[in-house]
Amino acid sequence: MKPRPLQRVLPILDWGRAYSRQDLGSDAVAAVIVTIMLIPQSLAYAILAGLPPEAGLYASIVPILLYAMLGTSRVLAVGPVAVVSLMTATSIGAVAEAGTAGYAVAALTLAGLSGAILLAMGVLRLGFLANFLSHPVISGFITASGFLIALSQVRHLLGIGAGGGTLPEMILSLWGHLGDVNPVTLAIGGGSVAFLLWVRRGLNPVLRRLGLGLRAADIAVKAGPVAAVAAGTLAVWALSLEGRGVAVVGEVPQGLPPLTMPSFSPVLLGQLFVPALLISIIGFVESMSVAQTLATRRRQRIDPDQELIGLGAANLGAAFTGGYPVTGGFARSVVNFDAGAATPAAGAFTALGLAAAAFWLTPLIQFLPVATLAATIIVAVLSLVDITTLRRAWAYSKADFAAVAVTILLTLGLGVEAGVSAGVILSVGLHLYRSSRPHIAEVGLVPGTQHFRNILRHKVITDPALVTFRPDQSLYFANARFVEDHIFERVAPGGPVRDVVLMCAAINEIDLSAVETLEAINARLRDIGVRLHLSEVKGPVMDRLKGAHFLHEMTGEVYLAQYDAFSALAPEAARRVFPADLPDEMG
Amino acid sequence: MKPRPLQRVLPILDWGRAYSRQDLGSDAVAAVIVTIMLIPQSLAYAILAGLPPEAGLYASIVPILLYAMLGTSRVLAVGPVAVVSLMTATSIGAVAEAGTAGYAVAALTLAGLSGAILLAMGVLRLGFLANFLSHPVISGFITASGFLIALSQVRHLLGIGAGGGTLPEMILSLWGHLGDVNPVTLAIGGGSVAFLLWVRRGLNPVLRRLGLGLRAADIAVKAGPVAAVAAGTLAVWALSLEGRGVAVVGEVPQGLPPLTMPSFSPVLLGQLFVPALLISIIGFVESMSVAQTLATRRRQRIDPDQELIGLGAANLGAAFTGGYPVTGGFARSVVNFDAGAATPAAGAFTALGLAAAAFWLTPLIQFLPVATLAATIIVAVLSLVDITTLRRAWAYSKADFAAVAVTILLTLGLGVEAGVSAGVILSVGLHLYRSSRPHIAEVGLVPGTQHFRNILRHKVITDPALVTFRPDQSLYFANARFVEDHIFERVAPGGPVRDVVLMCAAINEIDLSAVETLEAINARLRDIGVRLHLSEVKGPVMDRLKGAHFLHEMTGEVYLAQYDAFSALAPEAARRVFPADLPDEMG
Repeated sequence: MKPRPLQRVLPILDWGRAYSRQDLGSDAVAAVIVTIMLIPQSLAYAILAGLPPEAGLYASIVPILLYAMLGTSRVLAVGPVAVVSLMTATSIGAVAEAGTAGYAVAALTLAGLSGAILLAMGVLRLGFLANFLSHPVISGFITASGFLIALSQVRHLLGIGAGGGTLPEMILSLWGHLGDVNPVTLAIGGGSVAFLLWVRRGLNPVLRRLGLGLRAADIAVKAGPVAAVAAGTLAVWALSLEGRGVAVVGEVPQGLPPLTMPSFSPVLLGQLFVPALLISIIGFVESMSVAQTLATRRRQRIDPDQELIGLGAANLGAAFTGGYPVTGGFARSVVNFDAGAATPAAGAFTALGLAAAAFWLTPLIQFLPVATLAATIIVAVLSLVDITTLRRAWAYSKADFAAVAVTILLTLGLGVEAGVSAGVILSVGLHLYRSSRPHIAEVGLVPGTQHFRNILRHKVITDPALVTFRPDQSLYFANARFVEDHIFERVAPGGPVRDVVLMCAAINEIDLSAVETLEAINARLRDIGVRLHLSEVKGPVMDRLKGAHFLHEMTGEVYLAQYDAFSALAPEAARRVFPADLPDEMG
Repeated sequence: MKPRPLQRVLPILDWGRAYSRQDLGSDAVAAVIVTIMLIPQSLAYAILAGLPPEAGLYASIVPILLYAMLGTSRVLAVGPVAVVSLMTATSIGAVAEAGTAGYAVAALTLAGLSGAILLAMGVLRLGFLANFLSHPVISGFITASGFLIALSQVRHLLGIGAGGGTLPEMILSLWGHLGDVNPVTLAIGGGSVAFLLWVRRGLNPVLRRLGLGLRAADIAVKAGPVAAVAAGTLAVWALSLEGRGVAVVGEVPQGLPPLTMPSFSPVLLGQLFVPALLISIIGFVESMSVAQTLATRRRQRIDPDQELIGLGAANLGAAFTGGYPVTGGFARSVVNFDAGAATPAAGAFTALGLAAAAFWLTPLIQFLPVATLAATIIVAVLSLVDITTLRRAWAYSKADFAAVAVTILLTLGLGVEAGVSAGVILSVGLHLYRSSRPHIAEVGLVPGTQHFRNILRHKVITDPALVTFRPDQSLYFANARFVEDHIFERVAPGGPVRDVVLMCAAINEIDLSAVETLEAINARLRDIGVRLHLSEVKGPVMDRLKGAHFLHEMTGEVYLAQYDAFSALAPEAARRVFPADLPDEMG
């Protein structure tokens, strides 16, 4: 690894030097818009995570500043996001009671662990690991999580005390508490959902007709939750609905993010390690896909390893300032981008705006009904639910479909951690299974050429005493035995075959296990009086083979071209110009 | 899956029908020789497993009979083997105290679980899973285990009470007990080791000079342990050495294998599941490699899935008749083969011989010194230690060397289970890492031909506005992003490139994730004004792609041959006959 220039380690040095007055203007406008959008969202996601609402604000201040200095995306907006909030609730719910001091400390610890994991992965340049989450698995996981999140908020809409972390648990619990529904809460919650859905679907055309530009109308739509929150708060305050059983956010401490300490208890760290790892990976994958999409549109570059460092620092920041695990969010980043953010300074200004909100606006939040926050979450996560993936996967391949379907079912049935773990294991397992059974073509000479093609797909010239196999994959420990079996299914003792050629055109690598298998193949063939030859061995593979004994033991020759092997071993057939008669349907 | 004919499910129907008098003769001779060899070996391995010596005899009777009916190898000899005995000691030592009834029940349960796992794998045709143990990992594991086994027996040679399951523990424990060495035991043990080593190295030439044939001399050498055991027993009995602190086997119950029951306690089953899985896999791999080697020499076939069933039944048999986990052993199978065994009936006769031994010979065993049995184990397992693998792997590739070295170090340092688990994870991880970074060649036209080759290895014709990439591997979720990054490192916005061609000649499969990545590549290229084309897409891949939206979105064309793409997109370059000037060293 070569050391990286300072500008890549601290991207702020890159864009900061060229910062212009025009950039300042764009960034400031974007920051105001994003701040307005983030206030209700941060409160709501904190509640989803089972934390006091201010934790969501805190998690959006210092982390954003750290990411602005270290991240490579110009427009990524870091903070609490829906799926990570749900994963946080699930994993710290397993080690502490919601609402206790231990719960908050566990959330800080989870953020700290996740930050440390992300930083370590960045320093070790393990960004490529995220590639092992296949798209179908991610999309199945996000869809199922969105569904779980929406369902987890229904109890707030109804004003009842249900719980559960999986689909069956949630449904049973909701069912059991149906008698306790608070009608006023239901009215506020239902009204908020209806209003937000209308804002999403119906407001845009109205604003356009009133003369607003396309972009302005879009941004106004994103501010819908603020209007809902304001209206809900006003209604509770004016009509004293708190006395009629409507749950409200309640008193929120007024001030800047506090300095906090995560726990360093080995037991707690041990319990939270796997959840923190899963949260880190899911958060990183989600963040990268947003950052990548937006960067492409402006022809900017994202460095995955530096992103790990930026997100790691942001999570460590959250751990020490009263937050919880954060990552780059989709909705907020798109708004930031659309509002014209030019540099990460927009993020820094957003952080200032949210700090101001934590300082001055918190008294106003006291009467904010939880049902309204729940409504904003439900409407937001509905966009995560995307069952078209299932249809696409089904149309494309049954194996991909199985990966999505299993991930969705396990996430719904067993919870987020089991779902995503099973999805990863399934993807990797399917891949290993496939690559352990490579395609092996038996090839023959295309008449009038020096080309060799699959005897099953083309009319080719062959010789009964000579069989040529072309494995279409590198040979390694998991598929070498398969190749051996394949050869000995075709080449039986006492048959007409005298020579076997392995055409190595598609083999980029042969590992030590595969060399030993080649030795075994050679010995087994020798025992039944058949010689083994190689052809078209690539340069680097040949260099490797020269370091092994195999070439000395091999009974046959190494031919540069397959045609050379064919001419030498089946000279008569090589002179033929027409293939042997084949049934027409094989042509 | 098609149903298998009865003969494949019960291989005994195959060879049993053609059984001849000549076969009977060969089998009976082989059985006598193997029986003589197995008596001391079975006793010794049972002691290695921490069990009473008769458990080794019992484990060689019913399991052999069951394997003879169900297994596909004609000469494999099933029973206790060194590595599996050590693994048994380690895993049941963790749940029960050696010498207690609970320990024996745990051994039965381990055999039962292992049998069930092997049977299930056989029915589900999961024999291919064994391929995921790479040769270097297996050989490293066997070498380290052999070393641990030899060291674990040193305490018996010295007559001291040391313990430990890992190299550092054993050394510390031996060191701590060095003061207790029993000189008489040491004399017997040391004498046995010296005698056995001489038998191995020096007896054969002596016998040959005395006129014995090569094969007869070999077989006499294998009977060496019997002589040592007889001499040791006689010495203890005649000189009453038991009174001078020499540990002996002691009274052994006389009779046929008892009917026993493994435990069905869910807690115990849960504790033993992972050890049983590892024992099953290691046992299966060891057995398969012996069976495969011997079958090839006689041009017979081994069916891995049926082998799983045979070994599974053998282990279940061990569980219900006082044994412990068994598998096909190397030494005993080779002796069986060399002694001329023709069919599995030889195994059945061996089982009868051992049953007779359990019935009549056990009283003689009473004075057998444990030190002599330890000596037979030490000398036997020394042949497992094979450090040439380390040298071979080093010469061949550093990655393979790392796999062997880590497996050896972890097995010695952390024990057999950690060692083999780490080895598997390492092999699979290395493979995944490699396959997530496929070789991607940028290719150009070889002058005067229609062939395209790597521009770094050949003098080829290229066009600055056209870049052709040839990924040398199928595209799937773990490597698709790598291909994307590779393209965008080469094709920068504002550069001369107008067209990118992906030459798909080496691509056998594209999964849904990779299709989505191709869509992303297409969109990113479109955003910077570059078109994406495909060439030489294989038939099955094309069929798949037609089920996806990608082909409709793609900005460029699909060309049958790469030359067609080149002629269409860079017609001027295609007419050139000489490559552009290249620095000589790149030619």
